[in-house]
Amino acid sequence: MKNFIFQNPTKLVFGKGEIARLSELLPDDKKLMVTYGGGSVTRNGIYDQVKTALKGHNYIEFWGIEPNPRVETLRKAIQMGKENHVDYLLAVGGGSVLDGTKLIAAGIATDADAWDIVLSGIAKKQIPFASVMTVPATGSEMNGGAVITREETKEKYSFGGDYPQFSILDPEVTYTLSEHQIACGLADAYTHVLEQYMTTPGQSRIMDRWAEGVLLSILEIAPKIKANPRDYDLMSDYMLAATLALNDFIRMGVTQDWATHQIGHELTALHGTTHGHSLAIVMPGLFRILKDQKKAKLLQYGERIFGITKGSEDERADKAIEMTEAFYRSLGLTTRLSEEGIGKETIETIVHRFNERGVAFGENHNVTGDVTRKILESCYLAYSHA
Amino acid sequence: MKNFIFQNPTKLVFGKGEIARLSELLPDDKKLMVTYGGGSVTRNGIYDQVKTALKGHNYIEFWGIEPNPRVETLRKAIQMGKENHVDYLLAVGGGSVLDGTKLIAAGIATDADAWDIVLSGIAKKQIPFASVMTVPATGSEMNGGAVITREETKEKYSFGGDYPQFSILDPEVTYTLSEHQIACGLADAYTHVLEQYMTTPGQSRIMDRWAEGVLLSILEIAPKIKANPRDYDLMSDYMLAATLALNDFIRMGVTQDWATHQIGHELTALHGTTHGHSLAIVMPGLFRILKDQKKAKLLQYGERIFGITKGSEDERADKAIEMTEAFYRSLGLTTRLSEEGIGKETIETIVHRFNERGVAFGENHNVTGDVTRKILESCYLAYSHA
Repeated sequence: MKNFIFQNPTKLVFGKGEIARLSELLPDDKKLMVTYGGGSVTRNGIYDQVKTALKGHNYIEFWGIEPNPRVETLRKAIQMGKENHVDYLLAVGGGSVLDGTKLIAAGIATDADAWDIVLSGIAKKQIPFASVMTVPATGSEMNGGAVITREETKEKYSFGGDYPQFSILDPEVTYTLSEHQIACGLADAYTHVLEQYMTTPGQSRIMDRWAEGVLLSILEIAPKIKANPRDYDLMSDYMLAATLALNDFIRMGVTQDWATHQIGHELTALHGTTHGHSLAIVMPGLFRILKDQKKAKLLQYGERIFGITKGSEDERADKAIEMTEAFYRSLGLTTRLSEEGIGKETIETIVHRFNERGVAFGENHNVTGDVTRKILESCYLAYSHA
Repeated sequence: MKNFIFQNPTKLVFGKGEIARLSELLPDDKKLMVTYGGGSVTRNGIYDQVKTALKGHNYIEFWGIEPNPRVETLRKAIQMGKENHVDYLLAVGGGSVLDGTKLIAAGIATDADAWDIVLSGIAKKQIPFASVMTVPATGSEMNGGAVITREETKEKYSFGGDYPQFSILDPEVTYTLSEHQIACGLADAYTHVLEQYMTTPGQSRIMDRWAEGVLLSILEIAPKIKANPRDYDLMSDYMLAATLALNDFIRMGVTQDWATHQIGHELTALHGTTHGHSLAIVMPGLFRILKDQKKAKLLQYGERIFGITKGSEDERADKAIEMTEAFYRSLGLTTRLSEEGIGKETIETIVHRFNERGVAFGENHNVTGDVTRKILESCYLAYSHA
């Protein structure tokens, strides 16, 4: 096991009716800015719950943080926050609203330009922030990361910083999500686990078991949620899975990969593909190309997650990859670029960008532009179930 | 899933050589008191590492916190701390040293008598404290609980309060532990998981998987550690398992039991039985008596942990209980009161105490004095492997 330092200070407040607790969780002596997305919260009752809980607090509202939050929008929020002497933020929405709010928190705390903060990779100073999470997917509600898009140049990068002071997760808010949102959320959570799991085997027995535990839970609930998206216990498991998939709990003392995310971010930046969907396309492709490097863990994954025990090592690894892609498809997501009308020129654009930046992603820093071309070309071929 | 609030602020600093980080982790502007047990740290090199890291810090030392820390000893430490205006504590030792230090932290922060704080069940105010954990077992390094003994009356009670600010876990410090210490540590961690797992089934798929993940890991490493107690990766898994078994991570949104602990504490208070060993005796007995109540979860546990799939429900539940007891015995621990020379009069003393206190422990508040008698009587019979 590698040495590690773990600390996750976020207070998780979980369960039905807990939005009412906002009143006691938020500080009394701060000027708040509440941040929202496009307005779905006004139609599903969440906005009313928040407004009721905020009575007596001193706050302003910022509306319009879009999916894949844009630095251009967030700069406006930063300006508004500074002008109003805001010193505490509450994000009400999905991972995009919260990610954007993390950048607003950094922008208000310093004089640096927001995009420079993103490019620096780390927010050194942020005003405190918290969230009411409404779309289980990114895990942003209990981690220090955020992903921001610059529309002007179609770039998408992540940065790290403080954790939310608290996050309220009421599974009932998921009842109004669309089937596609849930599919992307489940794919996102599943892939987050794989990014921290499909690495060198034997680093930590418990971390392996915990990662597998989240994967098995997601596989178990996914078809049930399709049949019954208003089952409280199912949606509780879904919501908790998304949080635990990316809150540092399953990465203690082990290496990580994240190459799939880096490639997926490009698809989103260039084509607007929903984040979870982009991962469903890239992850199986990455496994196909890096099969030899990841074979030992693929075999463990195949056996423990899908019960694959028969055949040669090669056949079992192939089967594990097929089952992974089949899971994404079972959610209702496509897994090939060609199905999304994304052409070969996009592959070349991404390869060109990676080569220009001189990057090499993944656990072993070997996912270069050329390896990325192979991965994306394997995601371009038509899907055929073996 | 039940509503829950989760927050665990402890910074976990894990890995070889990390004790040197004490210097940067401890505050510069505090008067420290470093607390120790009986002196084993002077023989295994830990004391020297701590002293080196503390150079330049303003500190005093308190020695002699015994296993099952006694309030009589801790009162002396509280007095010493107050006289020296101590405002930060560092525990260097096992769970007992840290548990005792948690009470010292509460005693220094208030004027209340230490035993009254324990009896109140909650420390409302504590000075900050941290730990260098040397004996993986109790999980005290990353939770807010402590168990204290009053020697005068042979009573043992727990109380809750703040979490350690940080805990340093260097697996290499475990190399000098005795086989019995390791056996008790593994039994303690295993039983902590069972107390949070062997309850009503179907409350949370992920919490079940995570609890099972710790159990499977402990079962896998236990025989390997016996063969090679200086294998760094094995001892890392052991150390991390003990922490994750009782740091709130596997209890989100689920009910808990803890009746075994309540009964075990009495055995320790009356006979000095090592904590983990007392649990190895009581837990199988509790399962035998509450088999019907716990049957559904026993079946899940039997199948997922031991692969028990054949036979009637009754036979499978019995087998799961047998395998649990066999595991404790495989560690080298006895599991029957008679093997420890503990007689029937002790059973009556415990039953009398529980009846006098009017308590009823466990998930369903039905482990009364009379149920406890049945449990302990089943732990009194000679062990025979089926």
